[in-house]
Amino acid sequence: MAAEKPRNGLTYASAGVDINEKDSFTESLESTMRRTFGPRVIPNPGGFAGLFRLDYKKGLFSRNYKDPVLVACCDGVGTKVKLAAEMGVFNTVGIDLVAMNVNDLIVQGAEPLIFLDYIAVPRVDKKMLAALVEGVAEGCRQSGCALLGGETANMPDVYAPGDFDLAGFCVGVVELKRAINPTRVKPGDVVLGLASAGIHSNGYSLVRKVVKHAGLDLGKVYEELSEAEKAPRGQRGKGAKKRRGGGAARTLGEVLLTPTRIYAGNIVKLQRNYRVKNVISGMAHITGSGLADNLVRSIPKGCDAVIDRSSWPVPPVFTFLQEQGNIDDEEMKRVFNLGIGYCVIVRKAFAESIKEQLEKLGEAVYVIGEIVKGKGVVREK
Amino acid sequence: MAAEKPRNGLTYASAGVDINEKDSFTESLESTMRRTFGPRVIPNPGGFAGLFRLDYKKGLFSRNYKDPVLVACCDGVGTKVKLAAEMGVFNTVGIDLVAMNVNDLIVQGAEPLIFLDYIAVPRVDKKMLAALVEGVAEGCRQSGCALLGGETANMPDVYAPGDFDLAGFCVGVVELKRAINPTRVKPGDVVLGLASAGIHSNGYSLVRKVVKHAGLDLGKVYEELSEAEKAPRGQRGKGAKKRRGGGAARTLGEVLLTPTRIYAGNIVKLQRNYRVKNVISGMAHITGSGLADNLVRSIPKGCDAVIDRSSWPVPPVFTFLQEQGNIDDEEMKRVFNLGIGYCVIVRKAFAESIKEQLEKLGEAVYVIGEIVKGKGVVREK
Repeated sequence: MAAEKPRNGLTYASAGVDINEKDSFTESLESTMRRTFGPRVIPNPGGFAGLFRLDYKKGLFSRNYKDPVLVACCDGVGTKVKLAAEMGVFNTVGIDLVAMNVNDLIVQGAEPLIFLDYIAVPRVDKKMLAALVEGVAEGCRQSGCALLGGETANMPDVYAPGDFDLAGFCVGVVELKRAINPTRVKPGDVVLGLASAGIHSNGYSLVRKVVKHAGLDLGKVYEELSEAEKAPRGQRGKGAKKRRGGGAARTLGEVLLTPTRIYAGNIVKLQRNYRVKNVISGMAHITGSGLADNLVRSIPKGCDAVIDRSSWPVPPVFTFLQEQGNIDDEEMKRVFNLGIGYCVIVRKAFAESIKEQLEKLGEAVYVIGEIVKGKGVVREK
Repeated sequence: MAAEKPRNGLTYASAGVDINEKDSFTESLESTMRRTFGPRVIPNPGGFAGLFRLDYKKGLFSRNYKDPVLVACCDGVGTKVKLAAEMGVFNTVGIDLVAMNVNDLIVQGAEPLIFLDYIAVPRVDKKMLAALVEGVAEGCRQSGCALLGGETANMPDVYAPGDFDLAGFCVGVVELKRAINPTRVKPGDVVLGLASAGIHSNGYSLVRKVVKHAGLDLGKVYEELSEAEKAPRGQRGKGAKKRRGGGAARTLGEVLLTPTRIYAGNIVKLQRNYRVKNVISGMAHITGSGLADNLVRSIPKGCDAVIDRSSWPVPPVFTFLQEQGNIDDEEMKRVFNLGIGYCVIVRKAFAESIKEQLEKLGEAVYVIGEIVKGKGVVREK
């Protein structure tokens, strides 16, 4: 009945939360965020929320939406955070976080504008948090959006030492009449597949299970993985360049932590080139549940997409994991992107020129299938 | 060297992730989300992102922003999730999640439009997830925004069985010329304090530490807490009504899980009444680090806010926790809201009428201080 009281007074710090430490860190993040700000961000130091001007009529460019539609999505990077924690490498998963969100957003025809991140940690580790936010800011620069805010949640008890979680949130805008929907896809359209940079950010619970069960060494260079360097050219960002540039063989851990490719910049550019002509009929971001189950979301009931799986090379990381984990073919297709990270469905007459444009922008592009009359499914040739 | 391969092929399900189960659950959430949709949401079933029309010219109302500024923020509910998990009550923290975000957003003068949630769990527990999302949807209805999307992340290994985490993201809009900033606050202005519903969503690491160290029983009705029923009137939502209505004494756990009060609806209404007159000079959402450190964010360098701490009643839950945890007065002020959840700084001539309006809308309002010439600090009378 009579509850025993603690002899010394309790404090928030004794409960694992140091407000002062968190505040000073939050301030130090602001310069990282500011580097992602364009002229549309309204400075709001100490504010309760970030401010972003939708229309912008002066200066370098002019934008004015007639009937703006806000496009918003939310995603995390799954248990890729566990791999980052195990390796103690925190500057790449932030890029993944932005990628997972902006690649979803551009499917709707939108231009990404604003990004916000949620980082949950068991305690404030400034170096780790700075690296995480640096990655998020790099992803924002790659995709042309402003890192307008974020939350660092100090959660002793929920996260084990060394563990953490990431969630991201992106808002973009598209003119109402240009919002893309699946009903534009027609028989005869061509499906272009854009190469992925590797596993991206899905299926890492299985990846880590394979590593564990097959007794793989994250620090080891496996010869079977060396061809992974044939990843798409031109991914921007210092981190990515350094990793791919020298041709130095990468360890398994480095290959597995390769950041998700960000298609936003190139897809937004492509769409600007076709402001008037209606040649892009649909798009799909290939994430968890693989090519078929994501592409099908962009196809109307009266059409099928017929995919030729021999039309693109499966990156060695997938064959390596399949072999090491003795994973069934169908399971591989259901869990991983297997080399195609993004699909663009286009009118046949423009397929070649769009492929060339995307290649000039740095994408590796394959003609992977076509749209035929059907029942709204994705099937193999 | 020769890695041992697992005898049976690995599957995603064996790694703790069942895609089918997650997909079917995601579909079942859509009806919960749809109940928060107004006419500005553009249906996008199976889409990669949610669509929300910013301008709306037809139907019940007409809105057209001349120079719209998007306002965005991100927040979680801290370790209040731990308390919810311990009690097995999942339908209230979703309300907290929305509250923490929309209450930040309205400080900038914005009208909340869109909400998205990120829920991370160790495994798909449909009943628990449905209750969580039901709470989020209830919070969205209370604050007049659309639950446009969300992500349920299945993270075995990161979250211990029974644990989970929540993050929320909110976007609103404000006309450029109406965006509130601290420079409007002037000496002579009055600080109105709006009553909190209790602890809200900050300081729960300390709360839980007190419960543990003092050996308190979450299932017990403590007499010292009975006055907690004097919470502000008129909080909407079935859950809230049921808990407050009957006058039945609440257990410590129930008192601690009381949802954060959502001020958005009433503050948006208040601002509509003062479209032309410039009478609301600043606002503050009182969260972690307490009244002084949040209110100071809304005050310009040349002013101080002088607060009279005797001007409002401190709810019994705070005195109870302070006593049980032997917590220092200053620490209490730095961690908890101590009864004031939101501040509105107004021109003196309008203070009484604004107080009355807010009271009619269901808020408990106190004149808690005034703005004087100073150095940009909050101090006590």
